[in-house]
Amino acid sequence: MEPKIGVIMGSKSDWETMKHSCDILDELNVLYEKKVVSAHRTPDYMFEYAEQAQYRGIEVIIAGAGGAAHLPGMVASKTLLPVIGVPVQSKALNGMDSLLSIVQMPGGVPVATVSIGKAGATNAGLLAAQFLAVHDTELQARLQERRDNMREAALESSGELE
Amino acid sequence: MEPKIGVIMGSKSDWETMKHSCDILDELNVLYEKKVVSAHRTPDYMFEYAEQAQYRGIEVIIAGAGGAAHLPGMVASKTLLPVIGVPVQSKALNGMDSLLSIVQMPGGVPVATVSIGKAGATNAGLLAAQFLAVHDTELQARLQERRDNMREAALESSGELE
Amino acid sequence: MEPKIGVIMGSKSDWETMKHSCDILDELNVLYEKKVVSAHRTPDYMFEYAEQAQYRGIEVIIAGAGGAAHLPGMVASKTLLPVIGVPVQSKALNGMDSLLSIVQMPGGVPVATVSIGKAGATNAGLLAAQFLAVHDTELQARLQERRDNMREAALESSGELE
Amino acid sequence: MEPKIGVIMGSKSDWETMKHSCDILDELNVLYEKKVVSAHRTPDYMFEYAEQAQYRGIEVIIAGAGGAAHLPGMVASKTLLPVIGVPVQSKALNGMDSLLSIVQMPGGVPVATVSIGKAGATNAGLLAAQFLAVHDTELQARLQERRDNMREAALESSGELE
Amino acid sequence: MEPKIGVIMGSKSDWETMKHSCDILDELNVLYEKKVVSAHRTPDYMFEYAEQAQYRGIEVIIAGAGGAAHLPGMVASKTLLPVIGVPVQSKALNGMDSLLSIVQMPGGVPVATVSIGKAGATNAGLLAAQFLAVHDTELQARLQERRDNMREAALESSGELE
Amino acid sequence: MEPKIGVIMGSKSDWETMKHSCDILDELNVLYEKKVVSAHRTPDYMFEYAEQAQYRGIEVIIAGAGGAAHLPGMVASKTLLPVIGVPVQSKALNGMDSLLSIVQMPGGVPVATVSIGKAGATNAGLLAAQFLAVHDTELQARLQERRDNMREAALESSGELE
Amino acid sequence: MEPKIGVIMGSKSDWETMKHSCDILDELNVLYEKKVVSAHRTPDYMFEYAEQAQYRGIEVIIAGAGGAAHLPGMVASKTLLPVIGVPVQSKALNGMDSLLSIVQMPGGVPVATVSIGKAGATNAGLLAAQFLAVHDTELQARLQERRDNMREAALESSGELE
Amino acid sequence: MEPKIGVIMGSKSDWETMKHSCDILDELNVLYEKKVVSAHRTPDYMFEYAEQAQYRGIEVIIAGAGGAAHLPGMVASKTLLPVIGVPVQSKALNGMDSLLSIVQMPGGVPVATVSIGKAGATNAGLLAAQFLAVHDTELQARLQERRDNMREAALESSGELE
Repeated sequence: MEPKIGVIMGSKSDWETMKHSCDILDELNVLYEKKVVSAHRTPDYMFEYAEQAQYRGIEVIIAGAGGAAHLPGMVASKTLLPVIGVPVQSKALNGMDSLLSIVQMPGGVPVATVSIGKAGATNAGLLAAQFLAVHDTELQARLQERRDNMREAALESSGELE
Repeated sequence: MEPKIGVIMGSKSDWETMKHSCDILDELNVLYEKKVVSAHRTPDYMFEYAEQAQYRGIEVIIAGAGGAAHLPGMVASKTLLPVIGVPVQSKALNGMDSLLSIVQMPGGVPVATVSIGKAGATNAGLLAAQFLAVHDTELQARLQERRDNMREAALESSGELE
Repeated sequence: MEPKIGVIMGSKSDWETMKHSCDILDELNVLYEKKVVSAHRTPDYMFEYAEQAQYRGIEVIIAGAGGAAHLPGMVASKTLLPVIGVPVQSKALNGMDSLLSIVQMPGGVPVATVSIGKAGATNAGLLAAQFLAVHDTELQARLQERRDNMREAALESSGELE
Repeated sequence: MEPKIGVIMGSKSDWETMKHSCDILDELNVLYEKKVVSAHRTPDYMFEYAEQAQYRGIEVIIAGAGGAAHLPGMVASKTLLPVIGVPVQSKALNGMDSLLSIVQMPGGVPVATVSIGKAGATNAGLLAAQFLAVHDTELQARLQERRDNMREAALESSGELE
Repeated sequence: MEPKIGVIMGSKSDWETMKHSCDILDELNVLYEKKVVSAHRTPDYMFEYAEQAQYRGIEVIIAGAGGAAHLPGMVASKTLLPVIGVPVQSKALNGMDSLLSIVQMPGGVPVATVSIGKAGATNAGLLAAQFLAVHDTELQARLQERRDNMREAALESSGELE
Repeated sequence: MEPKIGVIMGSKSDWETMKHSCDILDELNVLYEKKVVSAHRTPDYMFEYAEQAQYRGIEVIIAGAGGAAHLPGMVASKTLLPVIGVPVQSKALNGMDSLLSIVQMPGGVPVATVSIGKAGATNAGLLAAQFLAVHDTELQARLQERRDNMREAALESSGELE
Repeated sequence: MEPKIGVIMGSKSDWETMKHSCDILDELNVLYEKKVVSAHRTPDYMFEYAEQAQYRGIEVIIAGAGGAAHLPGMVASKTLLPVIGVPVQSKALNGMDSLLSIVQMPGGVPVATVSIGKAGATNAGLLAAQFLAVHDTELQARLQERRDNMREAALESSGELE
Repeated sequence: MEPKIGVIMGSKSDWETMKHSCDILDELNVLYEKKVVSAHRTPDYMFEYAEQAQYRGIEVIIAGAGGAAHLPGMVASKTLLPVIGVPVQSKALNGMDSLLSIVQMPGGVPVATVSIGKAGATNAGLLAAQFLAVHDTELQARLQERRDNMREAALESSGELE
């Protein structure tokens, strides 16, 4: 079977963050592919990837990048698939540069931006799954189960304070 | 026919921003409903809205709010539908507070955040449409036509400089 | 006897910060309860907690959360008890996101916000005690004694420089 | 009858903001006094005010100031009454300086900080009333009525969109 | 004769800023071309422009954009010509988003960033001219004359105070 | 008699801010000179001014500048006279760039920085006068009188609220 | 002989920063006293210290504090002596809160602010010495010698690169 | 042969950052010189360096500095050579102060600013080489080879994820 989610990142060093997207998709049993696609080092490949993703069956693209993070927005300009942008935490400015470079897109080309770093990568995986789940009741059930477990864990953790 | 998109906002004063989401949906011929749903003034109604949206046929929720903007994240905690958050530009801090309140969600409950203000509201409408278009080739064609027009307009505007 | 202060936090990991609220209340001999109440993972329980607190004798709620910190403001929207918000220091943005998400509430639903992190948690405990002390002269005496000790310690510490 | 709330501000020019605290207290029928008390221009009077407020029957102090806003924190250091700090929006930095100068108090001396500007001043009045209402069921009823009205207005405003 | 400088901008609305680059080049008698090249609306044309500029005799590219400003960095990824980036002042965040999106490029693909807005556009024109002037003594003389005039004007303006 | 204070500014456009330094010095009867001295347009004159000020009887230099504000720090590097830096409010970043460029001097060359804009210019004049007043009891008396008036005005303004 | 400089700090924990002020004064052979004077823990002593400093022969006060740093500004409101404020680097916000709380004083009461942390403390010592040196040629010579050494060290360090 | 690039830095401690500029120039076989030139400790030498660079054959100056970073802008005011500014990451503010001090130059004197820290230093070296390469086809070929290698490495790194 073919992957429905493309997880791409600007550099191999972003993997430490972006693996959390993949962990969620594994957990939810959603097929995905993962690749290094660099806006600045492989611009032509980035365009090729963005243009062809739809024809290979990809339904949502998750793109993570840091600093002057152009990958999510540029991919979004080359496809009509929904693109989720993950701001990777940068060294000097803690990801504030990544966040603004990804979220502040001009009207016309949206990027669905999530939080900075690991939590954002996790949420990118969940968001992609929630999109698919609108038309996939089994996936929806797995997502609901995850939420239920999360709720139970939170309720139980009160007893563990101190 | 029933609306597939719910456009909600924390206050009537957010309409000046959020109407740009509705304009896009009108332009693309996507059915939507629009409501004031306030996290802080109508918390119970917010939960009710979030819980029932899915059962009324809503597939994507667009939620706009400003300042300590809790509406998108709280709605997201009560539904498995994708929630798109629009940071409305606030008076003192220019929407930086709205942006961080919406985008910095903890791992587990994603909000798809777009840019601050009017451009973000426009993009929220487009993003919602792009989700639907994954399974709607006619809508995809209309989105593609919009992009084509946008490209043409940009190319032609070079001649208008000065 | 029943607790007058409810100390709640969005996650067990906030305990490292929020225990400083509890330490102050222990020191001042004020009864309190402590619980994990997560806005995003246990939204219904959060509303239930907020609605019922008053009827269980709680007089002040202290709520700590980090990132897109919605717990204090949402609890405040569901009760007329005073709610004190503690911005927990977040990983990427050092608690600036927590602070703005808590303090920038719209007119109508106040949250009494204190400083980021440990100092804020300490001050949340003191602020809650100061509220109770308006009608409790013994507690006021203990607070005064604490201030006196604090003053003495500061004056004496000059001699310890170098 | 004597006022229970002291509304003070660093300068007459802060009145445009701080009158919103007074409007709320008028609306809720809570007695208050209002004064200009400047940390930097009248430091001795500030200390005198802070020391004596409690003995004149004041139960909560609301203090508004802008820029390097020292009034709320210094008053708090001289009284055990709860002090609510309102960050007045400053000219160059939009109140971010006011906010940080008020909220980032060291452990030991709390200030209950509200949002920047008019919304914060409104919320300071409400927060003070909520404190009093813990032991005043009539005031609590008026607060509840205000919330009910606020909820109704929000619900009705959906119909007014467009 | 052919232009040596390409002045490009993401949108016709950036012209109000970018005309200041052109004014300087006119003043210094440097040939240039000016075009709207949008990273997000005309991505393919952007790549084509960047790839071919060198072969049409362009020696320096000046690129202005605002918000999530990807134009300068993406052009830089597709050419070895020096690219000067001008952060156009954005509506909500005053150009801080534009600045960080342009300047925070990863190691490997530089963008020569100048100040936000009009001053930056002026300086982009001057910087481009200074590059050309390294091998063009007449242009260098004109630049020197401009500096001399600037110095004289500054010295004389002391007399005009008050 | 010769001026003891040199008031310099990077551009004639800074006069709207810097005149407030001069107004204070006029009010306190302190002799001063005022000049446009631009770090970037008249660097040699700036060094000459800084080197010779001391030998012309200047005892304190007040230097105002905006944006990448190098004037105060560079003058400080060329003299042992105390240099007071006034961050002029800049267009895009509201003077935050001016403030950081002036205040964040490395260890070894201090600049006495005051607040952004008009209030800072006023305070620069007062600070310079306070330095002189350490050895000038008449000036000290005038400063004390100014403070007394300021206190009286603050106290009286309470009556003017509403 | 009596000290001419008072070095005060809000807490013993500020000593790690403020010792750099004292090191400079030791190096320059300037007499000083050092004390913990806390705005929030010892407000009355702070006022007493500020009021009496002048009569004990103090000519300049150096005050270091972090977070909502009120010490420098409050001391300045109680004396006509020049007050130098050192923003101590705070835990969550890296001293940005300290800086804004100290530098953004309203017109009327100046604080001479230096850079955040160790460099600022060093510069506070130098600035105080430069004030004294206006009327003390021996101290001026020592300051000049320090600058000369600093220049030599910088020039020589080129040879040590790599 | 004589160096065409001057790499200067405000302090020996900046070498850890600035060596990355030199590494690139070594790699590309571009001759350079490296020196400590401090705006604040060696202002006269800085001016001398800036004035004479052009006559010694230098074609581009790379200047790195941190905090209130005046070196790049002041050198730019004394030469018509292109000046590239590298914001060194500062201790308290993570290089945001360095960045704003370098990039926010007034119209008239440009500095080509690159990203904060190591990536910026690398890019400064590349940018300088790209300038030279406009008239040096061999250097251009080496730059192109570097880009090709960078692209290959990025493409291959996809296989190394996990």
